[in-house]
Amino acid sequence: ILGSHSKEKSVIITLPYLLFLQGWVRSVRPQKDNLFLHVNDGSSLKPLQVVASSHLNTRDLTFGCAVDITGTLEKSINKRQNVELHAQHIKVVGECNPVDFPFKIKERHSLEYVRQFPHLRCRTNAFSSLLRIRSEATTAIQSFFRDNGYVQIHTPVITSNDCEGAGELFQVEVRSDLLYDPNPHFFSVPAYLTVSAQLHLEVMAGAFSAVYTFGPTFRAENSQSRRHLAEFYMVEAEIAFTESLDDLMKVMEDLFKAATEHVLSCCAEDVELFHKYIAPGNRAIDILKSSSQNFTFSTEWGCDLQTEHEKFLVKHCGNVPVFVINYPYELKPFYARDNQDQPNHTAAAVDLLVPGVGELCGGSLREERLELLSQRLARAGLEDTHAWYLQLREFGSVPHGGFGMGFERYLQCILGLHNIKDVIPFARFSHSCLL
Amino acid sequence: ILGSHSKEKSVIITLPYLLFLQGWVRSVRPQKDNLFLHVNDGSSLKPLQVVASSHLNTRDLTFGCAVDITGTLEKSINKRQNVELHAQHIKVVGECNPVDFPFKIKERHSLEYVRQFPHLRCRTNAFSSLLRIRSEATTAIQSFFRDNGYVQIHTPVITSNDCEGAGELFQVEVRSDLLYDPNPHFFSVPAYLTVSAQLHLEVMAGAFSAVYTFGPTFRAENSQSRRHLAEFYMVEAEIAFTESLDDLMKVMEDLFKAATEHVLSCCAEDVELFHKYIAPGNRAIDILKSSSQNFTFSTEWGCDLQTEHEKFLVKHCGNVPVFVINYPYELKPFYARDNQDQPNHTAAAVDLLVPGVGELCGGSLREERLELLSQRLARAGLEDTHAWYLQLREFGSVPHGGFGMGFERYLQCILGLHNIKDVIPFARFSHSCLL
Repeated sequence: ILGSHSKEKSVIITLPYLLFLQGWVRSVRPQKDNLFLHVNDGSSLKPLQVVASSHLNTRDLTFGCAVDITGTLEKSINKRQNVELHAQHIKVVGECNPVDFPFKIKERHSLEYVRQFPHLRCRTNAFSSLLRIRSEATTAIQSFFRDNGYVQIHTPVITSNDCEGAGELFQVEVRSDLLYDPNPHFFSVPAYLTVSAQLHLEVMAGAFSAVYTFGPTFRAENSQSRRHLAEFYMVEAEIAFTESLDDLMKVMEDLFKAATEHVLSCCAEDVELFHKYIAPGNRAIDILKSSSQNFTFSTEWGCDLQTEHEKFLVKHCGNVPVFVINYPYELKPFYARDNQDQPNHTAAAVDLLVPGVGELCGGSLREERLELLSQRLARAGLEDTHAWYLQLREFGSVPHGGFGMGFERYLQCILGLHNIKDVIPFARFSHSCLL
Repeated sequence: ILGSHSKEKSVIITLPYLLFLQGWVRSVRPQKDNLFLHVNDGSSLKPLQVVASSHLNTRDLTFGCAVDITGTLEKSINKRQNVELHAQHIKVVGECNPVDFPFKIKERHSLEYVRQFPHLRCRTNAFSSLLRIRSEATTAIQSFFRDNGYVQIHTPVITSNDCEGAGELFQVEVRSDLLYDPNPHFFSVPAYLTVSAQLHLEVMAGAFSAVYTFGPTFRAENSQSRRHLAEFYMVEAEIAFTESLDDLMKVMEDLFKAATEHVLSCCAEDVELFHKYIAPGNRAIDILKSSSQNFTFSTEWGCDLQTEHEKFLVKHCGNVPVFVINYPYELKPFYARDNQDQPNHTAAAVDLLVPGVGELCGGSLREERLELLSQRLARAGLEDTHAWYLQLREFGSVPHGGFGMGFERYLQCILGLHNIKDVIPFARFSHSCLL
């Protein structure tokens, strides 16, 4: 079965076509003469219909079992699919007891129920669609940056820095050291899981015009809310020779659009599943009809939209992406660039807020001026630990800036998913680290 | 300056061409009438030659400083470059005091020396080349898997499993918890940094025909040798419906070739720097001339290679990649598939060994048979902690296998670099976690 993203390299085959299919059974419909199966190999949401003679049916041919099937691909007479596989041989290679298997045929299980089975939930339609979308979104983000001349940097997970100074750090140690060692630190210094790759990317923005990283990031937030994960993915970019927030906002917007266009084009079926069944949007006609406003023109289906209707819809959906810029100076970390509008008044920082999620991206111009940065680090008592960071400004400093985008929040935003635990393969949060 | 990988999207420009160049100065050569600069923006190894009138020279125009230059790109009369920038304006945007800057103009610093400055070493030719190669190799690996229908999975860094059972785990905790909390575990259970994504990929190989991951992996090895890092990158793949080691070996070989071809084609200059200056190979003629063998035919330069020479060279370079298969059963972890040649005699495991590095890839077929796996887990006392893993075999189990490739070892192998610390942006190892 050709997966959706394979369409870029589609092949032409002549029917009938001898096919060896391996996958998992998604439905079994025995009829008098024929047996109908749906078999899926994970390459796309849609299964392949398999038709076989009834005598090929066996007791172990159940929902969830793994099969090897040999047959010929032929044109289907049913309109629901273009082709179907006429099977000559069906072999069950891995049984699946329907009583014990937590997912049941034809049942649509809730996301909450499915979440209890982290080792099996990829076998549901919704979560396998999510994982294909996640994979393609990753590809899209990496292509976007490469096409625009960015160098990808593998920034470290383990770090001796606390970039944000926000606390909520995980510490890393070797087990035995915790108990016995007189020097308890494997790295000689306390070491933490990264909360942001920004400082490491700033190192690289001193040699490359543009760099990015895409990887796991950590916050030890003691929360089991729908919004928090202890381990999540961040896209972070840093751009040298940049002097305005407009440049950063343009990159954020272009990134969002490029990734989303790619996902919509390569995973149309998978995205549709979310928009149709899991987080359906509202139909314009329903919004208009349920409003208490007295319209001059009719809001019946079939009547064209009038200006009054358009204005109402725009206002109703006022919930659009918004950039917020120039935050109070003291609210922002030491690296944020002073706008110098008034003494220490605003910093050149920007957040992108999106409906349903809140902050999707956060960025700033970085203070590249040695003296200003030096003063601020001294005030914060960080001049010793950040001596190396000051040196970046001492040797060939350039105006630069960057931002981070939460990858799970991005997926939530485009798919309309309420709970962040439903957009990551294995969720880690306070009191939960399954598998 | 167009970076080397941009050649896929090269543009045609007509000379003279107005250019605004931003970058870092790599050389300054003042002459009587003219000033010659080399300026690099990180997009490729080669700098752009800038020619300016001597009166544009200033005291702060030094090696390492950052500049904005406006001028016209023109055909160069010197054969060393096709084009050069004739500058009208030069502005130093970030000074660089040559006395304090640890890298000196025209000096080739040793890798050991450069390694002391993790925040600045990307400004050297060799390390910026390495980082461009690393970025392109990453692209190549991800393209290889995507083109072959694999779904990319972001497997977790934090895990409650010890995949290999090999010890050497980093434990993850919240700082305050270490001291005060009656339940000392943020995740309620002890949590570690992953040593392998294999078990998580096996989960996914129960729904997708092929999956891979590419990310950081951790070993708390108390070693400062040239071979060990506490944090390194692994490519790991898992393939469903695979019944032979030959299939795995083919993927390993194809991956190696595809990645290397891409790197050689997109980063030719950067790779040449390593092969020419840092890890030069041996010329065939030198190997032949320095041998003690009595050849029938001449080994002088200009004489063609004879069969006796070819045989000698092949033997001399006998150091070629080698697959080793079918390891003793008891040496391999619980998941390795029993070949059943004799009772518990060999396991279907494979390593790829390469010159200079040793083990580059390690893989195996996984035990997909519920009963055999169940027995082995019971013997190891793992039946409770791995109950979820057994369930993967209970529900729609398929023959499958996979492997991991150490990404730093791969880079060492193709570039001939001796020390693993020289192929990663920020090296973490016993007693060292700088930045």
